[in-house]
Amino acid sequence: MQFIANVFPIYAWASTYNTNMFTRDLLAAFIVTIMLIPQSLAYALLAGLPPEVGLYATVLPLVAYAIFGSSRTLSVGPMAIASLMTAVALGEVAKQGSSDYLSAAIVLAFLSGLFLMLMGLLRLGFLANFLSHPVLSGFITASAIIIALSQLKHLLGIDVDGNNIIAMGKQLAVNAYGVNGVTLAIGLSVILFLLLVRKYGEGLFSAMGLNNTSAQILTKASPIVAVIATVAATHVGALDELGVAIVGEFSVTIPEFGLPTISFELIKVLLLPAILISVIGYVESVSIGKILAARRREKIDVNQEFIGLGAANIASSFSGGFPVSASLSRTSVNFDSGAVTQAASIFAAIGVALAAFTLGPFLYALPNATLAATIVIAISTLIDFSVFKKTWHTARSDFYAIFITLVTTLLLGVEAGLVCGVGASIGLLLYRSSKPHIAEVGLVAGTQYFKNIRRHQVETVRQILSLRVDESLYFANASYLEDHIYRYLSDDSKFSHLVLMCSAVNEIDYSALEILTSINARLCGLGVTLHLSEVKGPVMDAIDGTEFIESLSGEIYLCQYDAYGDIKAGL
Amino acid sequence: MQFIANVFPIYAWASTYNTNMFTRDLLAAFIVTIMLIPQSLAYALLAGLPPEVGLYATVLPLVAYAIFGSSRTLSVGPMAIASLMTAVALGEVAKQGSSDYLSAAIVLAFLSGLFLMLMGLLRLGFLANFLSHPVLSGFITASAIIIALSQLKHLLGIDVDGNNIIAMGKQLAVNAYGVNGVTLAIGLSVILFLLLVRKYGEGLFSAMGLNNTSAQILTKASPIVAVIATVAATHVGALDELGVAIVGEFSVTIPEFGLPTISFELIKVLLLPAILISVIGYVESVSIGKILAARRREKIDVNQEFIGLGAANIASSFSGGFPVSASLSRTSVNFDSGAVTQAASIFAAIGVALAAFTLGPFLYALPNATLAATIVIAISTLIDFSVFKKTWHTARSDFYAIFITLVTTLLLGVEAGLVCGVGASIGLLLYRSSKPHIAEVGLVAGTQYFKNIRRHQVETVRQILSLRVDESLYFANASYLEDHIYRYLSDDSKFSHLVLMCSAVNEIDYSALEILTSINARLCGLGVTLHLSEVKGPVMDAIDGTEFIESLSGEIYLCQYDAYGDIKAGL
Repeated sequence: MQFIANVFPIYAWASTYNTNMFTRDLLAAFIVTIMLIPQSLAYALLAGLPPEVGLYATVLPLVAYAIFGSSRTLSVGPMAIASLMTAVALGEVAKQGSSDYLSAAIVLAFLSGLFLMLMGLLRLGFLANFLSHPVLSGFITASAIIIALSQLKHLLGIDVDGNNIIAMGKQLAVNAYGVNGVTLAIGLSVILFLLLVRKYGEGLFSAMGLNNTSAQILTKASPIVAVIATVAATHVGALDELGVAIVGEFSVTIPEFGLPTISFELIKVLLLPAILISVIGYVESVSIGKILAARRREKIDVNQEFIGLGAANIASSFSGGFPVSASLSRTSVNFDSGAVTQAASIFAAIGVALAAFTLGPFLYALPNATLAATIVIAISTLIDFSVFKKTWHTARSDFYAIFITLVTTLLLGVEAGLVCGVGASIGLLLYRSSKPHIAEVGLVAGTQYFKNIRRHQVETVRQILSLRVDESLYFANASYLEDHIYRYLSDDSKFSHLVLMCSAVNEIDYSALEILTSINARLCGLGVTLHLSEVKGPVMDAIDGTEFIESLSGEIYLCQYDAYGDIKAGL
Repeated sequence: MQFIANVFPIYAWASTYNTNMFTRDLLAAFIVTIMLIPQSLAYALLAGLPPEVGLYATVLPLVAYAIFGSSRTLSVGPMAIASLMTAVALGEVAKQGSSDYLSAAIVLAFLSGLFLMLMGLLRLGFLANFLSHPVLSGFITASAIIIALSQLKHLLGIDVDGNNIIAMGKQLAVNAYGVNGVTLAIGLSVILFLLLVRKYGEGLFSAMGLNNTSAQILTKASPIVAVIATVAATHVGALDELGVAIVGEFSVTIPEFGLPTISFELIKVLLLPAILISVIGYVESVSIGKILAARRREKIDVNQEFIGLGAANIASSFSGGFPVSASLSRTSVNFDSGAVTQAASIFAAIGVALAAFTLGPFLYALPNATLAATIVIAISTLIDFSVFKKTWHTARSDFYAIFITLVTTLLLGVEAGLVCGVGASIGLLLYRSSKPHIAEVGLVAGTQYFKNIRRHQVETVRQILSLRVDESLYFANASYLEDHIYRYLSDDSKFSHLVLMCSAVNEIDYSALEILTSINARLCGLGVTLHLSEVKGPVMDAIDGTEFIESLSGEIYLCQYDAYGDIKAGL
């Protein structure tokens, strides 16, 4: 039983499911379905795929995550940034609209699913921690800007391709003369409509006497309303004959389950994008899931999330879709609408499937500009520069990491940007730890505590130099310590005892031990005795019995206070 | 004057040079020259280049380093591992023996020199610290094994090419039938002779009544003796007609100074190898230089070393050579023979130049097997597995890093091995810091010190949980802390105060602050007050005024002792 519950989190709630939960989940599912239909079509468009593929990428992934995912409210499916990254990755292997492009999308989803599953099975969840939140937020902001620019293509009715702002800017300048006025009018109207509903909708509907739930449903239905209105307008005005690009014919059939033939070459090209899309999707999903789980005192299991998202992506690939992950907007709506279990997702999947088979003829006349407008509005909330201000004072190197992420993503594109961002944050971390803070400390009068002589009123003795090293000692910083100590020797050689206070040294590796040994030897030659104090248990265990400990000219003290007292008494 | 002394370290000793120093340097130069001639020929052979190129790579680099290098005794020139890496890099762009191969070698030396200069001018010396000593030693051992195997080609007179032990093993098995007996006999004789002289030489010569210096000179001259003996044997026995490969015709002329035309394509392929060769050469040189400088209380300047070695490589490329760096064996001999300044290197350069112009006709009949034998003997001292034993107990992750370096170098070749080794050591470092040690601490009776409750007899109070975090808090480990704390909540929720003792927290980044804020909120909801103690000055400066500090439910104490006392009094 426990095993089943571990592998299939669905078991935990399915066994105690009741009518009350059913009612709540059904309502949430209804609202989410209304959002899902235009979003899934729009994100397919963003990914460069036919609109029905967005529907394929919705139904089964919702069900797969419901079975394997650990969050009860996460709503999985096509998502803006993953769709953009899909377009970038596929653009390298095939032309939009070709069947190769479509099969590459399926392979990409499959590889993402496989990678996520593997991470979950090998319990490598900790690796995702190396994509820091500041880097992620810089990346999301930059991606949202790129997405908004990419939608100019549909909003203006001209070609604006390219993976970075420079390429898109150039195309925009070149093609600006060809803007289609009617298309632009449709796009702007939809944008205006969506903005107004977002701002005043709930207030207006409430004032009209509707209860909260109905007001919320109507507000969230605004994209569907825009879809219906613009389809009607197209029919009435025969707008497609005026050059307005429309979705066109598409027929949703039950997709042929299975994978296209996968060539090794294709895997080689798509593997890195698949990993990047997976990591972004995973980190986003987990951070959304954690926030919501905390509100209801539920828990999400970071390793199980790999399995859940992996299953969703594999389900997407088998039904002919593209990479999916949790959607922040739909998850919030799902949660706020009262969904209590993943049954809501299963109901939404049924809703989308029903809609898919009936709406084809209707959606024929949907202008692409309408979908583009919904994308622009949806992603506009992702653009957030406040993190720059927040990090400037508290954590300067986070600021640099975000800045590097933002700039490289805008200028070089999403893949390079993400890699540079993660690289920069790790690089900055290594750089800082390679130049550790080393403080000269003295006794705080009346206590047994030793503090930085630059920050506190402390007592010191000329013959004793006490240095507190604020970092583990390892290969990249040990020679920095060496240089630092030797600088004291040349500055002022009046001390005869050096105490290294190791309260913040959590580890000493082999390289650092070699260097400590040579520091000890050199100090010895100059008549200075080297002592250690406050060496932590695990560190002491590791260095016990080594050449360094055996050759150490001084003592190892449990406390700096003992060291200071003892040496002072012996002077 | 200070400026000149900074840019040209030669100035420091040249201005006080005297007869006594001259005599010592001249003697050292004589011994080094005797070693240099066969070594430079042999390492050119190892690099896949004509023997005279080894001489070209010796003369000017010695002089260039003498002018710009900061060590007084480092002896620069062709070196075993750099030569192997040169052969690997050039093998990717041209065929051995072609003129393209030769120009590529020159370009490689030039790129190495440029890279080193750049590192020096940008003061990026700290980057070299990321190549840890254990990784370097694993890499050197593996490279030495590959070098020894590569020389089987010349020792057996058959083809044994390839960049890793598997490829070489296969070729060896396939070509074993073609072993040339005479070649093998020459090789084995030379190896035996060199081993015997190394082991008994100095003792024997001393017993014969020679003084130490003469005994040492004679011992170091053994490769030259082997050269003379085998040249004579080849002449007398017409061994080349028996299939013994010989050096053949080569004429040393004053090389045409200048660079070959450099294509962008070539630079693209050779850049990474050039960087790897430079880094290995630099780290090796600095560690040799540091050890010797310490013995004489001299100093080497890690940034100036980039300039010195960069100048040497550029000098090598301008005179038609290949990448050079400090040689451990020649530097030791130079030092032990009493060299006091780089004048010794200049004298050695003159010695090699003189020899180069006179020895051509004589070296015609030198068997390649003789040179291969001197290489094998020279590099045999580099193979050292003791570091495995030393690191197993003191620093397990160093052990893994060495192991990964050794295995990948042997199986995938030097370039992949070096990259994997550095990657592994950084990866292991990040992995460890992402799972920090967190200790529950209590008061050591009669003191103000708090120690791990698992290691010490300490006093605790049920309502107060004190946790000491033994690592800086940053994006990759903050959620680990979160999980760790929440585990205490589920285990045993009887405590009402949590004190995080931050004596080992040297930094808190933005991601960690976010997570601390959410921990605080969650604990608050459960009626647990969160306190901090022993927050370091720099950390306090950074987090002061942030949302976390403003929402913190408890206090920030200077000392854990105060925190404990204060909270206990308030219970």
